[in-house]
Amino acid sequence: MRPKQQFFVSPIGYIEKENDEKTSIIVYETYKEAFLNIEFFSHLIILWWITGRDNEGDRAVLQVWPKDRPNAPLSGVFTCRAPSRPNPIGLSIVALQSFEKPNRLIIDRIDAFDGTPVIDIKPYFPSSDSIRNVTLPYWFEDLGEPRAQ
Amino acid sequence: MRPKQQFFVSPIGYIEKENDEKTSIIVYETYKEAFLNIEFFSHLIILWWITGRDNEGDRAVLQVWPKDRPNAPLSGVFTCRAPSRPNPIGLSIVALQSFEKPNRLIIDRIDAFDGTPVIDIKPYFPSSDSIRNVTLPYWFEDLGEPRAQ
Repeated sequence: MRPKQQFFVSPIGYIEKENDEKTSIIVYETYKEAFLNIEFFSHLIILWWITGRDNEGDRAVLQVWPKDRPNAPLSGVFTCRAPSRPNPIGLSIVALQSFEKPNRLIIDRIDAFDGTPVIDIKPYFPSSDSIRNVTLPYWFEDLGEPRAQ
Repeated sequence: MRPKQQFFVSPIGYIEKENDEKTSIIVYETYKEAFLNIEFFSHLIILWWITGRDNEGDRAVLQVWPKDRPNAPLSGVFTCRAPSRPNPIGLSIVALQSFEKPNRLIIDRIDAFDGTPVIDIKPYFPSSDSIRNVTLPYWFEDLGEPRAQ
């Protein structure tokens, strides 16, 4: 049974893609103090809201054919990164290139559209977030090597 | 200015800690089909709701003294993993030990209380989620080494 409990999320900022060269995360003025010390971190975890999939139909999708994976079997949405899922939350690890005070982060890239709401930013800690010895099914095998940067 | 826009999140399941030896994620029956192929993955990203911090006071906290870090300066909540933050979303990478059909994942451990609502589960992909060459400020330096498992 699906519980009726619901939680609320408020955007803390948004993604701005000015052109292919510059991708930013802008936080609303209200939240700018939450950036204190941000310039010391090379990588951040960005949680964002997949606005285009925030509707009853997409949120009811439980299985999909993983995109661009012709060898993949039908898969549960908890076993792939499909944007259609019960709670449309996107997760990306980004490299922080610079911090433009008071509220703009210049990042390398993010797989989200211009204007996408950002809901949380966390520092990336290898001790908890970087895993060695991951095993994946054959249809995702090529995603097994760590990123260099 | 803080926008009035709000999004809704529904729990898809919860964490069960029976004792020190067994930690599970149970998903509600409604969502069990979203587990299709889960047994092929060694590690998962768990997003959970920090219920105890879902109140106006904790959600207004923008700076904290990072816990157990006597050398850390006052820090923005986007530069640490403090539970008090604008959107109280917790993120943990867990090792999947076994899948008990139809809706229970046995995991190694998670830094969340028994009964904590789970809001999303994603497969962990080293190609996007495991980063080498991370730099951290001196007060978090010991968190720079990847996890073995």
